Amino acid sequence: MIEPRILKGFRDMLPQDERIRLRLQDILQRVFRSYGFVPIDTPLLEYTEILLGKGGGETDKQIYRFEDHGGRDVALRFDLTVPFARFMAAHYSELPLPFKRFHMAKVFRGENTQRGRYREFTQCDFDIVGVDSVSADFEILNLMADSFAALGTTGISLRVSHRGLFNQLLDRLGIAGETTEVLRLVDKLRKIGADKVREGLIALADDQAAEDILAFIQPLDNNQATLENMIRLAGGESAAAARLRGVLELATESSMAADVVLDPSITRGLDYYTGIVFETFLSDLPQIGSVCSGGRYNDLAGLYTKQLLPGVGASIGLDRLLAGLDELSRLPQLGPETQVLVFCLQEDCLSACHRVAGLLRADGWRVEVYPEAKKLPKQFAFAEKRGIPLGIIIGPEEQEAGTANLKDLRTRETIDGIPVAHISHQLRELAPEFSVSARHGGDSGL
Amino acid sequence: MIEPRILKGFRDMLPQDERIRLRLQDILQRVFRSYGFVPIDTPLLEYTEILLGKGGGETDKQIYRFEDHGGRDVALRFDLTVPFARFMAAHYSELPLPFKRFHMAKVFRGENTQRGRYREFTQCDFDIVGVDSVSADFEILNLMADSFAALGTTGISLRVSHRGLFNQLLDRLGIAGETTEVLRLVDKLRKIGADKVREGLIALADDQAAEDILAFIQPLDNNQATLENMIRLAGGESAAAARLRGVLELATESSMAADVVLDPSITRGLDYYTGIVFETFLSDLPQIGSVCSGGRYNDLAGLYTKQLLPGVGASIGLDRLLAGLDELSRLPQLGPETQVLVFCLQEDCLSACHRVAGLLRADGWRVEVYPEAKKLPKQFAFAEKRGIPLGIIIGPEEQEAGTANLKDLRTRETIDGIPVAHISHQLRELAPEFSVSARHGGDSGL
Repeated sequence: MIEPRILKGFRDMLPQDERIRLRLQDILQRVFRSYGFVPIDTPLLEYTEILLGKGGGETDKQIYRFEDHGGRDVALRFDLTVPFARFMAAHYSELPLPFKRFHMAKVFRGENTQRGRYREFTQCDFDIVGVDSVSADFEILNLMADSFAALGTTGISLRVSHRGLFNQLLDRLGIAGETTEVLRLVDKLRKIGADKVREGLIALADDQAAEDILAFIQPLDNNQATLENMIRLAGGESAAAARLRGVLELATESSMAADVVLDPSITRGLDYYTGIVFETFLSDLPQIGSVCSGGRYNDLAGLYTKQLLPGVGASIGLDRLLAGLDELSRLPQLGPETQVLVFCLQEDCLSACHRVAGLLRADGWRVEVYPEAKKLPKQFAFAEKRGIPLGIIIGPEEQEAGTANLKDLRTRETIDGIPVAHISHQLRELAPEFSVSARHGGDSGL
Repeated sequence: MIEPRILKGFRDMLPQDERIRLRLQDILQRVFRSYGFVPIDTPLLEYTEILLGKGGGETDKQIYRFEDHGGRDVALRFDLTVPFARFMAAHYSELPLPFKRFHMAKVFRGENTQRGRYREFTQCDFDIVGVDSVSADFEILNLMADSFAALGTTGISLRVSHRGLFNQLLDRLGIAGETTEVLRLVDKLRKIGADKVREGLIALADDQAAEDILAFIQPLDNNQATLENMIRLAGGESAAAARLRGVLELATESSMAADVVLDPSITRGLDYYTGIVFETFLSDLPQIGSVCSGGRYNDLAGLYTKQLLPGVGASIGLDRLLAGLDELSRLPQLGPETQVLVFCLQEDCLSACHRVAGLLRADGWRVEVYPEAKKLPKQFAFAEKRGIPLGIIIGPEEQEAGTANLKDLRTRETIDGIPVAHISHQLRELAPEFSVSARHGGDSGL
């Protein structure tokens, strides 16, 4: 006997959890599509040289890498951005630019599982490639807001800043050479606090530069004041300043105005962003970190092609978001999987049972036939365990007469002798919340 | 520069193809759910000992296997059945039995790509576990038929037989010891022809046994005649015979009667089936082989638990089916991804453009805003390339007046000066095929 264990950091998804995950993915997909984003997919396994590119850093240690049957050096993807860059380099000439894609799929990282992280998790990425404009920057922000609204997540804080403006500040301070170290420090602000960041900055530059950086990354009373402060410290107007102002103006005139916060401490660390950057926090659960992050990059696929492909995008960490919504008890409430159970009294009646189930399914009901002629109490217990609200009983008499007995399993109300053709109508009267129009609304049932 | 290549046997899915794949998965998911099947998921990566079990055979050579960071012997799943067996062994006590699950996911096999096979492909499995009954056997067959009907696939042939009845025949002939070899031969009937099978059988048993086996696997004029012939050759009535008769009777009384063919040459080769077995062929494209196969097994998870878990299920090879439907020009026709393009005349009007787009999205339209103020002919060319049927133009005058100009991009008809609140209604008049009710029907747009 082999012990049925799974690898550390990996999970089985039981039906309740998987239904919710599929439901969230379905909601997100609808929002992405409503903006004209189209789905793509890429292989889970790629050449390691593609995935690691120049290499270096954490990724090299975390990647699942091995030699395949043909002696090729291959690896499982660790994000959806690198495969997308490779995809665009290979296919940009076949695609209408600007190109808007979404990609929801599994990625793999051999991370330390102590911190409650999974080694297999789902990312949802969306990007607009082939254009560098205020409209595209704003659209990603808009899409982030609409995604969380569609998920029913209130109390989100969409934090934006601009990496170009930050670079402008470092240029003015004459410490552009220390950008990497400064970014690394600022990115840790939430974790280590302002004092430690100040210490680190003073070690990198002079006191005045440290104070200017700390003043720059400080959000003020409102976005307008923060923006003016940033521009003043960065040395005045610039293309970066104009872009950030443009995005904020569009946000102010939109319905999500209240959720957008200009937060200059957002830098996205060492990532490859060059323009606007985004992070998203749940106001009631800031400690889980950003549940949707992204920004603008001026050269997506430079490792694989000479074609310059600027873009802007963001990524939702679905597992972290799920965990967060669960902790806040804000996961979508899903109705019963099965709405109608056709009880099985005796095998002779199976044909009628399956026929009625088929008629109801054609009418949009989710129906199952109890699969054997067990005693009725056992079948009722099964219905209760599964939370099935409606029942149908067909015995020899009903089969003969072409009728069925209906049972509301919630109230134990029974309606006998309904002609087969009228069952669907009668069930709708009993349980209007499962009617076709209700089903065609938001709840696709998964 | 790194060449943006992918591994042999792997594929990028461009939006057109990915939309169709997601659409087929969505259709199948709805059918599975309408029968009360619930989704689960399992890790892509598992301990090799779990996946290979006793090992031996083709799988060992094809599996992607390696040592992970922790020195564990791990592998990518090569099907969804073995992980399901491990899943049931681990979780059966938490699940209401009988348990009906579906699982649509990627699997990996390092197969020879010469034969047009992929090394990463999608399987859709559905099983009923914890019950051994005629109703469950029939339900899987019914679900197979409904799945293909929902996919719009006409001309399918659902071939069924019963492995127990085949075993009964071999018992009577006294060659039960040769079962493996006989199954291997019979499974090749379509490939190598009856003469070669006869030669092989004669080498394994005597002439009379060979003739009896050949007579047994021969379908006759109708299912009834075939069944009687099988039972006679197998030596008379038995539980297996009764079960097969029961399933065929239920099928005969159902709407799929015409598509169900009793075909005793179906054995599912060396698989672990013990009862009814299924294969599905496209009548117009039999050469691609079975697009949905399965059967009954009496002990799903015996490798991992002492708990006896009988079940019945089947698996759709989505990639093979997609290729088949493509060859027959029967893939679903998807409408335009984006239904409405909001043109961008100048940046000053962006706020109004995004606001109108948001209003239309809230009303169910799929809308994009052209992301920069390029010359109009360029934007029209983009709309045409993307097949977007409807356009909205908002200039400074319209922005001021709170109106927009509508354009049917198919007919070039223009309607100017529509108040923003009336745009959705007006678009519905122009293009009723994209109306909300049409969208709530079968076409979920992907």
